[in-house]
Amino acid sequence: MIAKPEFQPSDPNFETRCRDSFNRQPAMHLIGATISRLEPGFCEVELIRRHEVTQQHGFVHGGMVGMIADGAAGYAAYSLFPADATVLTVEYKLNLLAPADADRLLARAQVTKFGRTLTICHMDVIAVTAEREIACATGLATMMCLLGRPDAPRK
Amino acid sequence: MIAKPEFQPSDPNFETRCRDSFNRQPAMHLIGATISRLEPGFCEVELIRRHEVTQQHGFVHGGMVGMIADGAAGYAAYSLFPADATVLTVEYKLNLLAPADADRLLARAQVTKFGRTLTICHMDVIAVTAEREIACATGLATMMCLLGRPDAPRK
Amino acid sequence: MIAKPEFQPSDPNFETRCRDSFNRQPAMHLIGATISRLEPGFCEVELIRRHEVTQQHGFVHGGMVGMIADGAAGYAAYSLFPADATVLTVEYKLNLLAPADADRLLARAQVTKFGRTLTICHMDVIAVTAEREIACATGLATMMCLLGRPDAPRK
Amino acid sequence: MIAKPEFQPSDPNFETRCRDSFNRQPAMHLIGATISRLEPGFCEVELIRRHEVTQQHGFVHGGMVGMIADGAAGYAAYSLFPADATVLTVEYKLNLLAPADADRLLARAQVTKFGRTLTICHMDVIAVTAEREIACATGLATMMCLLGRPDAPRK
Repeated sequence: MIAKPEFQPSDPNFETRCRDSFNRQPAMHLIGATISRLEPGFCEVELIRRHEVTQQHGFVHGGMVGMIADGAAGYAAYSLFPADATVLTVEYKLNLLAPADADRLLARAQVTKFGRTLTICHMDVIAVTAEREIACATGLATMMCLLGRPDAPRK
Repeated sequence: MIAKPEFQPSDPNFETRCRDSFNRQPAMHLIGATISRLEPGFCEVELIRRHEVTQQHGFVHGGMVGMIADGAAGYAAYSLFPADATVLTVEYKLNLLAPADADRLLARAQVTKFGRTLTICHMDVIAVTAEREIACATGLATMMCLLGRPDAPRK
Repeated sequence: MIAKPEFQPSDPNFETRCRDSFNRQPAMHLIGATISRLEPGFCEVELIRRHEVTQQHGFVHGGMVGMIADGAAGYAAYSLFPADATVLTVEYKLNLLAPADADRLLARAQVTKFGRTLTICHMDVIAVTAEREIACATGLATMMCLLGRPDAPRK
Repeated sequence: MIAKPEFQPSDPNFETRCRDSFNRQPAMHLIGATISRLEPGFCEVELIRRHEVTQQHGFVHGGMVGMIADGAAGYAAYSLFPADATVLTVEYKLNLLAPADADRLLARAQVTKFGRTLTICHMDVIAVTAEREIACATGLATMMCLLGRPDAPRK
């Protein structure tokens, strides 16, 4: 309901930095999630339905819905962080609105409030079929900026 | 802080029913999660760390932590449901307390309030190593009982 | 981010019903909150800052912010309920974004998903001064419809 | 479910500091809430039912329940903070479990995870009558420590 804020990323190289970080996450590879859109303060993560990510009714598992929502929120926030920082999920809350009954899910996260330490994001997960788009989840996440911590695997 | 409630399951066959349902979830197979303990109103889901479920720092991915927490809460609630019902996650909220830096995670969910329609669960995720157990996440979930809906894949 | 849904209230008398119910809440009188706008699926609650509702820094107390947000969500949902129902807050989650440093707060709640049993609302609390409007809180609430229960004081 | 942690307050004068801060909150005076118990990492806030804090069914208003829960969490966290800091609610989530139908409510908050910047608390609100105690709400809160900020009214 509040107008979408306009953000100026402090790191001009934010897109490569976010995509590289996402690609270093084996868990996102495992489930088959990809970043489908990235803007300063906004990230969309796509998940294609295949048997391996479903639950007992054949819909995409709610845990997978949460996972791509959290992922999108993390990179929406991370896109605004300085180059030498990493991102940490403090907490998130998700309401599941409808079964994720679609061939394709899009988790969209938008930064609502950007702060030096904490950044708050709204998240929506959309189930996309040929005929329609329906909201299957909505939520809020609090992300933390850790300065001077490399966003890379431990050696 | 409130004493753990004692629950009498309405379905004496609750354990088989829960384990069968869990096993019908391809997503839990994909990530390698299993039910390690099940009691009326309580469920523990175990996840062994392997490369495929980690994030960029080598810890278990926060989305995986959320997924097993939500799964544990679902079956903690489902254990108390009548035999002809299915379970739906209405919403959950998770605080990530520490990196999931351990070879083994245990997501424990306990029903706090059982209701005919809505059941509320507390969730804790514990990172277990040879030396110690630390809480890596804590949360709350609202589960819904859908009567007369089979808990099985659509044909 | 999802387009605002259009709702058709099942009770044409929804406005009177909501305002009467709100007026039966002594707690809202105590803090000085009023319904400033009401539409099907939408409610705005206004709170004027006076000394009695502040915290130690002179801002409106966060608990008051939560109270008007929850109140707005309750009536946003209740506006869509049948005439013979009452509304119950199942749960809510609120992120406080900025100090409520303004002479006037507006809590706006919009139904995102209307259901027979559960209705989900987004909530925003805006701090309004002569110069600007800033978001001081944002949240999500799950409301429950109790059919056949009068929305009136017990005798 | 996790064992209650033992905390050593960094400020030996924590009790006076917390009670003084609470007493500087006009909003808590307005609703009639008081601190009934305070320990390092734990706070209990009491609210006596009187007409002014009820909703349309004569129970204590859910917003009041949230307000004392948030207040308890704030002082549970603040009890562990250094002497020259103030406390800020980042976010909280509350599940309302039963109507607050009692003459006396006790909101109990326990720090689960203490951190230099963020502190996480569990909250329970208990409805106390002569015959019984029932849980009427449970929740989680994230509190922030602001160092070097006086916890006092602006001049």
